[in-house]
Amino acid sequence: MQHFTSVQDVADPMVLVKKALAIKKDPFANKALGLNKTLGLLFFNSSLRTRMSSQKAASNLGMDVIVMNVTQDSWQIEMEDGVVMNGGTAEHIREAAAVMGQYCDILGVRSFPSLSDRDADYSEKIMNAFKAHAGCPIVSLESATLHPLQSLADLITIAEFKKVEKPKVVLTWAPHIKSLPQAVPNSFAQWLTQTDYDFTIAQPEGFELSEQFTKGAKIEHNQEAALKGADFVYVKNWSSFHDYGKVGTNGDWLVNQAKLANTNEAKVMHCLPVRRNVVIADDVLDSEHSIVIPQAGNRVYSAQAVFQEILEAHG
Amino acid sequence: MQHFTSVQDVADPMVLVKKALAIKKDPFANKALGLNKTLGLLFFNSSLRTRMSSQKAASNLGMDVIVMNVTQDSWQIEMEDGVVMNGGTAEHIREAAAVMGQYCDILGVRSFPSLSDRDADYSEKIMNAFKAHAGCPIVSLESATLHPLQSLADLITIAEFKKVEKPKVVLTWAPHIKSLPQAVPNSFAQWLTQTDYDFTIAQPEGFELSEQFTKGAKIEHNQEAALKGADFVYVKNWSSFHDYGKVGTNGDWLVNQAKLANTNEAKVMHCLPVRRNVVIADDVLDSEHSIVIPQAGNRVYSAQAVFQEILEAHG
Amino acid sequence: MQHFTSVQDVADPMVLVKKALAIKKDPFANKALGLNKTLGLLFFNSSLRTRMSSQKAASNLGMDVIVMNVTQDSWQIEMEDGVVMNGGTAEHIREAAAVMGQYCDILGVRSFPSLSDRDADYSEKIMNAFKAHAGCPIVSLESATLHPLQSLADLITIAEFKKVEKPKVVLTWAPHIKSLPQAVPNSFAQWLTQTDYDFTIAQPEGFELSEQFTKGAKIEHNQEAALKGADFVYVKNWSSFHDYGKVGTNGDWLVNQAKLANTNEAKVMHCLPVRRNVVIADDVLDSEHSIVIPQAGNRVYSAQAVFQEILEAHG
Repeated sequence: MQHFTSVQDVADPMVLVKKALAIKKDPFANKALGLNKTLGLLFFNSSLRTRMSSQKAASNLGMDVIVMNVTQDSWQIEMEDGVVMNGGTAEHIREAAAVMGQYCDILGVRSFPSLSDRDADYSEKIMNAFKAHAGCPIVSLESATLHPLQSLADLITIAEFKKVEKPKVVLTWAPHIKSLPQAVPNSFAQWLTQTDYDFTIAQPEGFELSEQFTKGAKIEHNQEAALKGADFVYVKNWSSFHDYGKVGTNGDWLVNQAKLANTNEAKVMHCLPVRRNVVIADDVLDSEHSIVIPQAGNRVYSAQAVFQEILEAHG
Repeated sequence: MQHFTSVQDVADPMVLVKKALAIKKDPFANKALGLNKTLGLLFFNSSLRTRMSSQKAASNLGMDVIVMNVTQDSWQIEMEDGVVMNGGTAEHIREAAAVMGQYCDILGVRSFPSLSDRDADYSEKIMNAFKAHAGCPIVSLESATLHPLQSLADLITIAEFKKVEKPKVVLTWAPHIKSLPQAVPNSFAQWLTQTDYDFTIAQPEGFELSEQFTKGAKIEHNQEAALKGADFVYVKNWSSFHDYGKVGTNGDWLVNQAKLANTNEAKVMHCLPVRRNVVIADDVLDSEHSIVIPQAGNRVYSAQAVFQEILEAHG
Repeated sequence: MQHFTSVQDVADPMVLVKKALAIKKDPFANKALGLNKTLGLLFFNSSLRTRMSSQKAASNLGMDVIVMNVTQDSWQIEMEDGVVMNGGTAEHIREAAAVMGQYCDILGVRSFPSLSDRDADYSEKIMNAFKAHAGCPIVSLESATLHPLQSLADLITIAEFKKVEKPKVVLTWAPHIKSLPQAVPNSFAQWLTQTDYDFTIAQPEGFELSEQFTKGAKIEHNQEAALKGADFVYVKNWSSFHDYGKVGTNGDWLVNQAKLANTNEAKVMHCLPVRRNVVIADDVLDSEHSIVIPQAGNRVYSAQAVFQEILEAHG
């Protein structure tokens, strides 16, 4: 594995899931692998789960970790080539990335979308610039359009909890009060369509995701019909891709206990943070349907499997 | 030891003091105990001594450390159950605590009081929520009403510097220009009343602490009378408990060299940071009376004794 | 080595360069030396290269690292002695430094100049206060007037890339849009004048550095004349020392490919971050003339050589 910024960097997703499950059984078995190796974690945006799980995964592998927060007021990076830098940016991505690559064996980067300029967001300029200039493997800690470490953790969780060989997995849109990225659902769709699971995406009209990630999934606009017989219900809000960044507040799509009645005792997933009683009701999150906490716990083994793959490939 | 949020979590405070003093003599003796264990440090408020001493203590035990700063503008946690989270909070304490518990073997939490709503502060909602939902041992890094790691360091320091079996220890209020928490003096009183030392608290009328923590201590309103014959003078400002949060600026209570004349060559303590010439005069802090620096140094062994107790109990 | 805040703390700069080059060949050879030792890194100002390279250097030596950010709004330190601290400062440097010295075996401190009060800046009040009160070795991570870890990395880089025994090294001023410190050029001049290299400083009239650091260097006001035959061109903006803090925007001094025509195929250096096409043109930074990235990489070995010297001296 050279970089890890989408499922396309993975030879076989289900083999990686199995590797992660083996790591989970014996998390410290490869502590010599990361000896004298440094993981840099670079956050253009805040993070709880990704930061903690990546640090824990790196420690489990014996790596050292350096965390850098890039805040808007302290240090602005120029992304455009050829400009005269006489404005607000103090350093060019060409230098910033290359310098960090001098200090790190793997560099994790988190950078959210603007949600105002779709072409810019979907060009993944920041992630691609790091790949081009850092000179070391790049791991996405969530980019403008994808969140592959989350998706791998999601597949690990489904593998642990599934009771049938090929479960029915439904990704359902839910309401929110803010404009949220499409990275988590894009990425979940991209990974799920690589499996042989029965995979459906449900959302209101106007909230369809980009077809580049959903090709192969069933698309539904009726949440009740979609949820019927589901083994796993992945709940997530996202803003509109077509009317780019538009907030969707339709409360009919809130997932509560009643919505799960016709599922196959579905397990409910969410990447967190989740706004209770806006996205998912208390009666689901506080019930045995919810597996959001072990799902978050699996972020450690997702990151650890990826770091281990990269360390093995780069010797 | 299950959690460490007050002296009530400790079987025998003086046994813990002895343990800390033994650790101080040989701080790296138990480095295998923390191998592959992770300490999470979660700060809702800023910190110097607590952060550095906890990191050092964890390293001495061979633990990995993850530090998380929760700032008001980046990430707000909902503390109330049952609410529709359509406002400023992005994640509920039920998820936040449980997720962090997935990544950490021990979780340290710092959270200051509002000093405006006494009932809310004294209910210790945040610390109790972490205990209820994290699923791992919780260590207070100073809560709304108590600071037990500080108090343990204070007892260690007294044990090191005392010249008589049962010293006279005086906790004296001193002025300040801001509204400060009662956590340090509450906690000091709670721990001191568990010892057989001669313990007096002196403060102006209206600045008495909550009786739930001072029961068993002598209460004085005359600083000069209180200090007479003291072996240790613990100086600290706190805002009013009764007129909740009220600032006390009475300069007569400043502790200077003259005030120490009738003590038994008293050692002067303070938890730091201290405003010089407002709380304690230069002529004390720059004299041999002051033991505030070794007292701060003992924060390492206080934290290390607590982490070790927890690691031993949780295997 | 007791402290490391200027070249004057170094017995023989070229011996230290050779030590750093040996460390670079085998960076993990002394991992036992830092076992159970803690490096504290205290930032009054933000940092990318210094932070990451110091952390990496410490890890290479087996040390633990604690990073503290001192931001203006969270925690203000009083630098003046004898004042009544009833204003905005919450802790005196006497306590702050001494406390941090209790937790760290080496303390690195970064603190930029005001660029408004020259006497205050050039008195190096903060660095000297840490030396006086911390009770442990202090390493400058860039002070008001000097940046010795950068200069050592610069000398390491010249030693690696030089093709003649005694290269011609030119430090040339370049324009900028902001008022920048003189620390990097002061320090580079201070170190270069300790070598037997042919060393010239070029700047417009009014931008001469303090003579206390440039004594022994050739001073030029004609950039073209200065660059002739240069083996190394160190490009850097600085604000005026004489008209203290004055910004210099003279675009004629921008270093581009044409300016290098009469050099000896000069290697171009810069401490970074660099504003492209303001300070140095793209056609230089993207050419084989530029060695700014390996120069930044050498910050690791600069820091590691210094930490190792201190650890060896302090047992």
